[in-house]
Amino acid sequence: MAIKVDFRSDTVTKPTAEMQAAMMSAKIGDDVFGEDETVNELERKLAGMFNMEAGLFCPSGTMTNQIAIKCFTQPMDEVICDQTSHVYRYEGGGIAYHSMASVRLLYGERGILTPELIEPEINESNIHYPNSSLVVLENTVNKGGGIAYTLDQIEPIHTLCNIKGLKLHLDGARIFNALIATGDHAKDYGKYFDGISVCLSKGLGAPVGSVLLGSAATIKKARKIRKAFGGGMRQAGFLAAAGIYALDHHVSRLSTDHQHAAALADALNKVNYVSSVMPVQTNIVLFNVAAGFRAEDVVHLLSEKGIACIATSLNTIRMVTHLDVSSEMVDMAIDKIMHMQPITHK
Amino acid sequence: MAIKVDFRSDTVTKPTAEMQAAMMSAKIGDDVFGEDETVNELERKLAGMFNMEAGLFCPSGTMTNQIAIKCFTQPMDEVICDQTSHVYRYEGGGIAYHSMASVRLLYGERGILTPELIEPEINESNIHYPNSSLVVLENTVNKGGGIAYTLDQIEPIHTLCNIKGLKLHLDGARIFNALIATGDHAKDYGKYFDGISVCLSKGLGAPVGSVLLGSAATIKKARKIRKAFGGGMRQAGFLAAAGIYALDHHVSRLSTDHQHAAALADALNKVNYVSSVMPVQTNIVLFNVAAGFRAEDVVHLLSEKGIACIATSLNTIRMVTHLDVSSEMVDMAIDKIMHMQPITHK
Amino acid sequence: MAIKVDFRSDTVTKPTAEMQAAMMSAKIGDDVFGEDETVNELERKLAGMFNMEAGLFCPSGTMTNQIAIKCFTQPMDEVICDQTSHVYRYEGGGIAYHSMASVRLLYGERGILTPELIEPEINESNIHYPNSSLVVLENTVNKGGGIAYTLDQIEPIHTLCNIKGLKLHLDGARIFNALIATGDHAKDYGKYFDGISVCLSKGLGAPVGSVLLGSAATIKKARKIRKAFGGGMRQAGFLAAAGIYALDHHVSRLSTDHQHAAALADALNKVNYVSSVMPVQTNIVLFNVAAGFRAEDVVHLLSEKGIACIATSLNTIRMVTHLDVSSEMVDMAIDKIMHMQPITHK
Amino acid sequence: MAIKVDFRSDTVTKPTAEMQAAMMSAKIGDDVFGEDETVNELERKLAGMFNMEAGLFCPSGTMTNQIAIKCFTQPMDEVICDQTSHVYRYEGGGIAYHSMASVRLLYGERGILTPELIEPEINESNIHYPNSSLVVLENTVNKGGGIAYTLDQIEPIHTLCNIKGLKLHLDGARIFNALIATGDHAKDYGKYFDGISVCLSKGLGAPVGSVLLGSAATIKKARKIRKAFGGGMRQAGFLAAAGIYALDHHVSRLSTDHQHAAALADALNKVNYVSSVMPVQTNIVLFNVAAGFRAEDVVHLLSEKGIACIATSLNTIRMVTHLDVSSEMVDMAIDKIMHMQPITHK
Repeated sequence: MAIKVDFRSDTVTKPTAEMQAAMMSAKIGDDVFGEDETVNELERKLAGMFNMEAGLFCPSGTMTNQIAIKCFTQPMDEVICDQTSHVYRYEGGGIAYHSMASVRLLYGERGILTPELIEPEINESNIHYPNSSLVVLENTVNKGGGIAYTLDQIEPIHTLCNIKGLKLHLDGARIFNALIATGDHAKDYGKYFDGISVCLSKGLGAPVGSVLLGSAATIKKARKIRKAFGGGMRQAGFLAAAGIYALDHHVSRLSTDHQHAAALADALNKVNYVSSVMPVQTNIVLFNVAAGFRAEDVVHLLSEKGIACIATSLNTIRMVTHLDVSSEMVDMAIDKIMHMQPITHK
Repeated sequence: MAIKVDFRSDTVTKPTAEMQAAMMSAKIGDDVFGEDETVNELERKLAGMFNMEAGLFCPSGTMTNQIAIKCFTQPMDEVICDQTSHVYRYEGGGIAYHSMASVRLLYGERGILTPELIEPEINESNIHYPNSSLVVLENTVNKGGGIAYTLDQIEPIHTLCNIKGLKLHLDGARIFNALIATGDHAKDYGKYFDGISVCLSKGLGAPVGSVLLGSAATIKKARKIRKAFGGGMRQAGFLAAAGIYALDHHVSRLSTDHQHAAALADALNKVNYVSSVMPVQTNIVLFNVAAGFRAEDVVHLLSEKGIACIATSLNTIRMVTHLDVSSEMVDMAIDKIMHMQPITHK
Repeated sequence: MAIKVDFRSDTVTKPTAEMQAAMMSAKIGDDVFGEDETVNELERKLAGMFNMEAGLFCPSGTMTNQIAIKCFTQPMDEVICDQTSHVYRYEGGGIAYHSMASVRLLYGERGILTPELIEPEINESNIHYPNSSLVVLENTVNKGGGIAYTLDQIEPIHTLCNIKGLKLHLDGARIFNALIATGDHAKDYGKYFDGISVCLSKGLGAPVGSVLLGSAATIKKARKIRKAFGGGMRQAGFLAAAGIYALDHHVSRLSTDHQHAAALADALNKVNYVSSVMPVQTNIVLFNVAAGFRAEDVVHLLSEKGIACIATSLNTIRMVTHLDVSSEMVDMAIDKIMHMQPITHK
Repeated sequence: MAIKVDFRSDTVTKPTAEMQAAMMSAKIGDDVFGEDETVNELERKLAGMFNMEAGLFCPSGTMTNQIAIKCFTQPMDEVICDQTSHVYRYEGGGIAYHSMASVRLLYGERGILTPELIEPEINESNIHYPNSSLVVLENTVNKGGGIAYTLDQIEPIHTLCNIKGLKLHLDGARIFNALIATGDHAKDYGKYFDGISVCLSKGLGAPVGSVLLGSAATIKKARKIRKAFGGGMRQAGFLAAAGIYALDHHVSRLSTDHQHAAALADALNKVNYVSSVMPVQTNIVLFNVAAGFRAEDVVHLLSEKGIACIATSLNTIRMVTHLDVSSEMVDMAIDKIMHMQPITHK
């Protein structure tokens, strides 16, 4: 019988029995009236963890990011971010659509921005130019193969933003992977960012939802924008309960996902159909197929062997480890990877 | 101990044990990948019920409405709707924000539009005028005291829209209340509307969610817009399962809510502090306090007696019946209503 | 030979020989670089007249109004104005398009708003509602038959806006007609409004242009928005010179236009095909045709007699007097009006 | 007495006496009513020259570009252009503001795009991605030092757009410079572009205005958008007459500007404070100052000697030749350039 491992994304996880029990016993209420105790608890809990004043539970990380960008910009402003960043590439053109803001796109090494990259791209005041008002970082960087910023890298960016009067937002879709990998503390994040988006439905394994963190004033504004987005949910406590459970039980185990990813990278580095593997730091493995091979063919062959992953370009493949990938599955996958031989094309 | 009845809204219902069991046994998956079987089933089921091609599950009725308006308009278009309509009044200014569309506001009797009201307000083609492109109806009409359109009233509006090249969208937040009250069939709705938004979290008693129905092309477009709104949820099957359960078990019982509302109206018609009660057709009771009384005071006194409701203006109060309001609660509430005496103000 | 009188609008005037001479001798420069002396002079001159800090020359009154609305609102805000107002009806849906702002539409008597009408329509703070942030008045009111606000009427509206934290903008397309009719002074306007749009190409007889007046900060913001709108013109001094000439020579003569309009109204009041004429205060005559007649037919018959005017609805006609309408033309027109007999329809 | 040469931009030209005479004798009318004969003639004339169906006169090239982009996109679409392009960099963030469209920014050699650069950046259909719908070229390329596309380079881009269903717009701010430099014919442009923006106020020497060219349907749509932008001007014939005069008299003389630019480049190539001059093809000279010098200082020293130009970065300077720059002025400027010595900085 076919074993099946799903490395396509860490969004595919399904709640464990324990998480599901937590969901079912949640105290719920009408969150649009502010009466869902579990949602309120989740928002408070995460805000406390990151040392920020308040939180807002939303159906997705796209919504938390886009609401934050709307909070921190005006139409005709400009958002500075890496050209590979999720907020620019994978959120349906939301920066222009929701915020009517322009973008200045940087080319960070593996998507990591630095003050040196950012500073020259801040527009001077001039009627011809959009007004630079926001920098967005992503931690970990998805398209950078899961690389993590350290707080030491973030601090000088914060300082620059402060001096120049720009806001700083963090797309923390995989912020807990970054914390585990760097040893930095969530508590220290609050002072560097005006907004942080934390996803519960990726590595943490909750079924739905993200939380936007910020000052009380920002979250008040965000709550109003969420209403207009249609992101206000009624008895959302079921989902929030899963998030609370995940924060209590699924954070430290992310190191296991990181070890799994490293093991996969080791194996991939040894096979002839892979030319290079981006150094693995967290739970994402990004590798190039060797000349003569096609990413699509390799993905197809892996699929036939029960291993699902995604070709992210003509010659690049991504694998993501997560809660629903066990060590046995990783071993099985490595075995398949080591012993299969994709066809070549001239 | 105080008995507590919550007439504030039909959004406050909590899932029954049976609904919760259905949620927990749902087959789930990553809906952003289209792999959540329960979400897919809900979308198909509702589309079938209303004889439309496809459906899209969203976190709220505000989102389904606003996505539909975006689907059916371009910036600089104009939306025709009643001046009390939810899409105009209570969705955070979303028509202008999300669709950059202007509004033409009509004064329907209890919010009910007619071809005679609509036709003169359709702009002729002229560079000065926004392009009239969409009519939105609401059934039942919330601010009209839960009054229902019949299909006989809708048909000529559809014909007018067809002739004039306008789209027709239905905000069906309480469409099942309308169906129960009028005896019309959901199956007959599909041919009249380009889009229908159906809420699962009001009278139907599901915790979260609404479904947008339309043609396959409309829903394809809507799915892309939902992504940009951040309305794409991962393992949303838990919520969808509640919706399916509600459709299977909570529709016909709405007639009980309607009887409860009628009984409340009868009582309110008899007390001296009420000047008039809007005739009750579904589950909403809207009444005016008599001269010398203030809505706020009446709401406060009711609240002290364990009855929660909302003052919707200085002299208007709304009560809504729903799944979590039993006949005993209604009897208790009537008793309190009949025997209490709010203070008067000169 | 046919004499021709054009009562369609006061926008149709052509520069006099003297105005044209002023245009040709203007000192010009590149206004996008801020180097057009004549534009600068016009902006300063008008700001001084209205006791405001700064001005911005734009190609049209639609642009000055829409830029002002953008300056004074944010997306998801709400603009309060009369339902007949030019900014809402005749600017292409610009409030929603440019400012992503909702509208609250009032029914003023002849379009004249009062604090009593405005106050109840200011939204309380609530996530469901757009944020009320701006009131727009129009003086004179075009669709109100050229009726003028007095400063006595404006003062309490200003006070209300001040208390409630709303901005107040004046669409002064025909503000000089209002000043002449009321005897109010331009100098007294500055303290009541956050923005004033003044048209040069209507009664004043300049070929092109409007000026937005406001605080220095508002105009700085407006200048940037004008750039994005593409309203920055290079050697615009030719047009500005016409405006300066008009301000120096064409203001006091507006009383003649008003007398002409009154004379037309007198005549119209005497003929059987007119049922009523809106009392004339400035240069606009708005009248209804009697039962049995059609506005379209009357306009057509007038046109055959060399008199151009516009049917503004099935039974309403508008005539506007202006610089290019002489007393002889008015006499001729009155003669035609008195002696013609449009056909009747049952 | 100081001779003064203004190389800052070709926008600074003032009308000649002959052009001014043409302006004053223009037949004018109310263009918002479509009655300005001179505007109509200019629109027809330019459309004919470029073999397109219709034209629309606007106050600026920013407006013609932004209206075109709005015509050819929907919110959540993506515009592909060079990262230095005027529409992206210098139009106040207009793509995001007016069209709510995202941008994909390419790095063309001197801003020249190719099918090879464009094709991989066209998004596949996917709910995460904006919909690629428009490519914008700029000819000549301002930030590319006035380099011109040939029709041979444009043709395959047109073919690619055609195959992929994208529209193609030309920012032809300096299209006549391109035509003179390449020997291509305006007549051949019509078949390659969906929209062309032509500026009259740059090399052509008219004081104000640009014309958008396109199909009759596009221009009808554009005319409506122009109204909402406030770009509709009343008696605009004065300005249009200058444009017609320029098209009749100022096109072939652009070759003189190009010779002037080449002569300036030759001189700049010989002085020690210039490290490199971008090869000159039209009327723009873009050069870098040598190590140890600062652009700002060089500009300041030139300014003291009566030569105005602009530092476009810390070490780059731009000079533009135009109608108001005579051969004597160029000789004088070259003399100053050759004999001056800016200070150095370590």
